[in-house]
Amino acid sequence: MLLDPSHDPALTSWVASAQAVGTDFPIQNLPYGCFRRIRRAGPAEPWRIGVAIGDQVLDLAAAAQAGGWSAEVAALLAPLAAGNLNAVMAQGSAARRVLRSALQAALKTGSAQQPALAPCLIAQADVEFSLPCTVHDYTDFYTGIHHATAVGKLFRPDNPLLPNYKWVPIGYHGRASSLVVSGTPIRRPNGQFKLPGTPEGAAPDFGPCRRLDYELELGAYVGRANALGEPVAIGQAGEHLFGLGLLNDWSARDLQAWEYQPLGPFLSKNFGSVLSPWIVTMEALEPFRVPFTRPEGDPQPLPYLDSAENRAGGALDIQLQVRIQTAQMRAAGEPAVALMQSNYRDAYWTLAQLLAHHTVNGCNLNPGDLLGSGTQSGPQPGQGGSLLELTSGGKQPITLPNGETRTFLQDGDTVELHAWCEREGAARIGFGPCSGVILPAP
Amino acid sequence: MLLDPSHDPALTSWVASAQAVGTDFPIQNLPYGCFRRIRRAGPAEPWRIGVAIGDQVLDLAAAAQAGGWSAEVAALLAPLAAGNLNAVMAQGSAARRVLRSALQAALKTGSAQQPALAPCLIAQADVEFSLPCTVHDYTDFYTGIHHATAVGKLFRPDNPLLPNYKWVPIGYHGRASSLVVSGTPIRRPNGQFKLPGTPEGAAPDFGPCRRLDYELELGAYVGRANALGEPVAIGQAGEHLFGLGLLNDWSARDLQAWEYQPLGPFLSKNFGSVLSPWIVTMEALEPFRVPFTRPEGDPQPLPYLDSAENRAGGALDIQLQVRIQTAQMRAAGEPAVALMQSNYRDAYWTLAQLLAHHTVNGCNLNPGDLLGSGTQSGPQPGQGGSLLELTSGGKQPITLPNGETRTFLQDGDTVELHAWCEREGAARIGFGPCSGVILPAP
Repeated sequence: MLLDPSHDPALTSWVASAQAVGTDFPIQNLPYGCFRRIRRAGPAEPWRIGVAIGDQVLDLAAAAQAGGWSAEVAALLAPLAAGNLNAVMAQGSAARRVLRSALQAALKTGSAQQPALAPCLIAQADVEFSLPCTVHDYTDFYTGIHHATAVGKLFRPDNPLLPNYKWVPIGYHGRASSLVVSGTPIRRPNGQFKLPGTPEGAAPDFGPCRRLDYELELGAYVGRANALGEPVAIGQAGEHLFGLGLLNDWSARDLQAWEYQPLGPFLSKNFGSVLSPWIVTMEALEPFRVPFTRPEGDPQPLPYLDSAENRAGGALDIQLQVRIQTAQMRAAGEPAVALMQSNYRDAYWTLAQLLAHHTVNGCNLNPGDLLGSGTQSGPQPGQGGSLLELTSGGKQPITLPNGETRTFLQDGDTVELHAWCEREGAARIGFGPCSGVILPAP
Repeated sequence: MLLDPSHDPALTSWVASAQAVGTDFPIQNLPYGCFRRIRRAGPAEPWRIGVAIGDQVLDLAAAAQAGGWSAEVAALLAPLAAGNLNAVMAQGSAARRVLRSALQAALKTGSAQQPALAPCLIAQADVEFSLPCTVHDYTDFYTGIHHATAVGKLFRPDNPLLPNYKWVPIGYHGRASSLVVSGTPIRRPNGQFKLPGTPEGAAPDFGPCRRLDYELELGAYVGRANALGEPVAIGQAGEHLFGLGLLNDWSARDLQAWEYQPLGPFLSKNFGSVLSPWIVTMEALEPFRVPFTRPEGDPQPLPYLDSAENRAGGALDIQLQVRIQTAQMRAAGEPAVALMQSNYRDAYWTLAQLLAHHTVNGCNLNPGDLLGSGTQSGPQPGQGGSLLELTSGGKQPITLPNGETRTFLQDGDTVELHAWCEREGAARIGFGPCSGVILPAP
């Protein structure tokens, strides 16, 4: 753990809400997002990068204009002011630390920059977001071993976890074009599926998905690029990882069951995947690094997936939660209710391992590329990170506090993902919500 | 078939080589590529779009400057002069036809533009290419039923073709970042594999791929975009398809066999895929449309994958060929030799069906997105579109004319894909080569 003064839990900000109990965005966090003010009339504002602080956004376009920065920091702020986070992501960890340090100094209690920067704050309630960066390629991994086991049982009762699972960080390519930011509604997809009891040779059915599901994931964003043909060793992975957000990988289970053999999921996944607006940097997460261990009796990772640093602190202690608000709850003014909670430290592979594996064959990753963690379920039955797990494949409906039941999602259901880090002696680091509502099929 | 005067086989060009016997690039073709002159010294030239004609490239940056175009054509040439083909792809078929018609008029024998455009020609031998457009997302389909059956037999002898194959155009997401242009060498990838005879529970091996293969594919480029949530009906697919190139989907068979369950191929495919530099437009291919039919007894496509237009002319009669030149052949000055030949009309699904299927769930496609056809093998044993098929999974080596044998590719092997259309009463339309050499593992 590379803890530095930026993690001091005693640090405070002149932005009062950064000290609010339970805030996701204290001065120790400082995640990046791409935003503009919501306009009721007139032309839309340009997108630019901001940093979350309490319930405010520090507008980095305005902050760059306000001046008072070193030449090095001003050069880093220039692309951010133009809405281009990828340019900073491309520069590796030293640039990130310089920027973090400068922004923290500017926002801390007693900063001489307060008078110049106070007018650069905008309430988060007054802004809308785009994706935080351009994602050229999106890879989805499968690191939730409890999810892989539970889902494997439904598809292959005798053989839930395939022989490669404990050796290969299983992953596949996702669709980048249909990544959308939190708050974007998603239409229920149409597609082919086989209803239960349809004979094997008979025609499939076609229509709106009947088994629509969410998946609770974290998404890691790539920082510095590697060239095609040049693997990144696990010890260098930190240079190439920028930060983390939440990812809801909406899934059409009936389409998936029918289409996925032999090349994997396709239309069951690419009708939309939701990302949270804020990217929490790897630097902000440093205090929550925990040892990476393997259960007794499990194989140790191959050498290219192993390092002392990864063993000592490759895993991350991040609390994860899914909440649902049905149309009926929304009409009644009832807030979303929690469906489950799990922790990212239970993932079977660490981010450094995913990055080393992804590039070991020479595959090139670019700044802003997204690595999904796969669904993060906990070890207990109520900790499934998808409805497929929580309802045992749709066989055991769950009952919500208002008496409604669900096997899979209904039109009008809103799903929210949340994540936060908490421990003694460290400031709470939150991710902000990742949410989306289901619209009827076209 | 929408044949128009642009397909008249009697048309000739003032560029003499466009009339050479066997040329890929007569005046009826006019494919687009992104190029610059090879510089031995001094700063590199900017990339710009050109059109192939005979053994020359018409430099569209120079041609735009030369003037003599209508305002409409000049507006279309402006992004092309800046190296941006995607902007024209985005506009749909009407813009493509306007441009084709203007370029053909300019290049045809007797054109008044000849004096102004003659200085805009550059010999293809003097240029280098980048990818013809920006490919944001790459989907690889699996439409070669003879390939799917042959490969299925190797993995699942009792059950070669899965029950969904004749209903679902099977596809999966590929990696866009590692798409490279013809001529780019590829390093043999390292990765995990299980050697034959390794017990199921034992550790996998790690090292350079031992079963490196090519795949003979066509790649279709998307034209006009569709918005997320808005499917494209099969009758509208033509508006959204820009053209075709060749695609070699290099494949590491040993990595693939170990990693592909349950989410599909990943590191076995994303270490590099090669595209030919030229995109042959759908307009140039019109004379080679042929009826789409299903074998007796096979199910008819579901309604969203069926149309009268698709039945009448949804398939394309394109000859495909793979050639190999080993390092030993190269040293001896021997040219590449053909390994197999097949025809794209044997594909089980048409391009219009792929586009309708890909978007039926609301997935959004963007201009320049790539749809791989999957490996195009013919029905006969010697028509496998990969070594996996030609050597029965590496069990029966093939012998080359110089006496060398191959099961899979060796370092120094160059693989070339070729494609062309020929029939009575139409000009020959060729694709130019798609080639790549294998370098040793790092």
